[in-house]
Amino acid sequence: MSRRATNPAGQAAFRLLGERWTYLLLREIFFGVHRFGALQRNLGIAPNVLSSRLRELVRLGVLERRRYQRDPDWYEYRLSPGGEELVPAIVLISRWGERHLDVPNPQGVLRHRACGLETDPRLACSECGEPMGPADLDWEPAADEPRLARPG
Amino acid sequence: MSRRATNPAGQAAFRLLGERWTYLLLREIFFGVHRFGALQRNLGIAPNVLSSRLRELVRLGVLERRRYQRDPDWYEYRLSPGGEELVPAIVLISRWGERHLDVPNPQGVLRHRACGLETDPRLACSECGEPMGPADLDWEPAADEPRLARPG
Repeated sequence: MSRRATNPAGQAAFRLLGERWTYLLLREIFFGVHRFGALQRNLGIAPNVLSSRLRELVRLGVLERRRYQRDPDWYEYRLSPGGEELVPAIVLISRWGERHLDVPNPQGVLRHRACGLETDPRLACSECGEPMGPADLDWEPAADEPRLARPG
Repeated sequence: MSRRATNPAGQAAFRLLGERWTYLLLREIFFGVHRFGALQRNLGIAPNVLSSRLRELVRLGVLERRRYQRDPDWYEYRLSPGGEELVPAIVLISRWGERHLDVPNPQGVLRHRACGLETDPRLACSECGEPMGPADLDWEPAADEPRLARPG
């Protein structure tokens, strides 16, 4: 296998999010459902599965576990800063799925709080602030991979 | 199971991209590798597996198959307009994986062609053009799902 075939980070991220429950769980937590019982009820998920998914996502640094009651100790789950960073990507992938995959799921409305309008998120450059489409990006893989410039 | 648990479109998209080879294959094609033999060589993938993955991605409207030679007929594969739309999302997920998942993959460099600088893509609002973080988004699910506003 050529070295070029390896991009474990991107692939690992898609695998993680593609696992059963992971996507739905992060979505619930993003929408403000933080406690085990409520997550279990909303998702109809078996407690042992929920428990193992939550543990895995805490271990990966996507979720944080916070105690909200002592004696007995009860915990709630929130997105970590790393988990928050995942939200824009989740939104883009979901919107793409809504537009392109043939599944019975009418498209929801995504609203930008600051301007109040329904938004269809775009990518913008962190440096010049201009919008970027696929053709505007060059990706130079790191280290020992050959440079891959996109044909113009 | 509550109705709220269902978001098949987003989940379906992650599952698709999480499948073995799909991510790597789209990445090769994005970088200009369009022909069966070259894809097979670069990825070290079995021909029957490559063939079935390509067929699936054409069926889903992510790839387009174009004949580039007659007699014998040979075809090449390119991103469809729908596949092109997937690129920003793939970039965001990959960058997140590079930053947050513990895999041995040094971060590559992503460059914005227009300004020439190394970029770290952000989400921007399609309406006002301003950058949007996770806290700036409200998502109102469609139809029969209850409105889910994120606590402020």
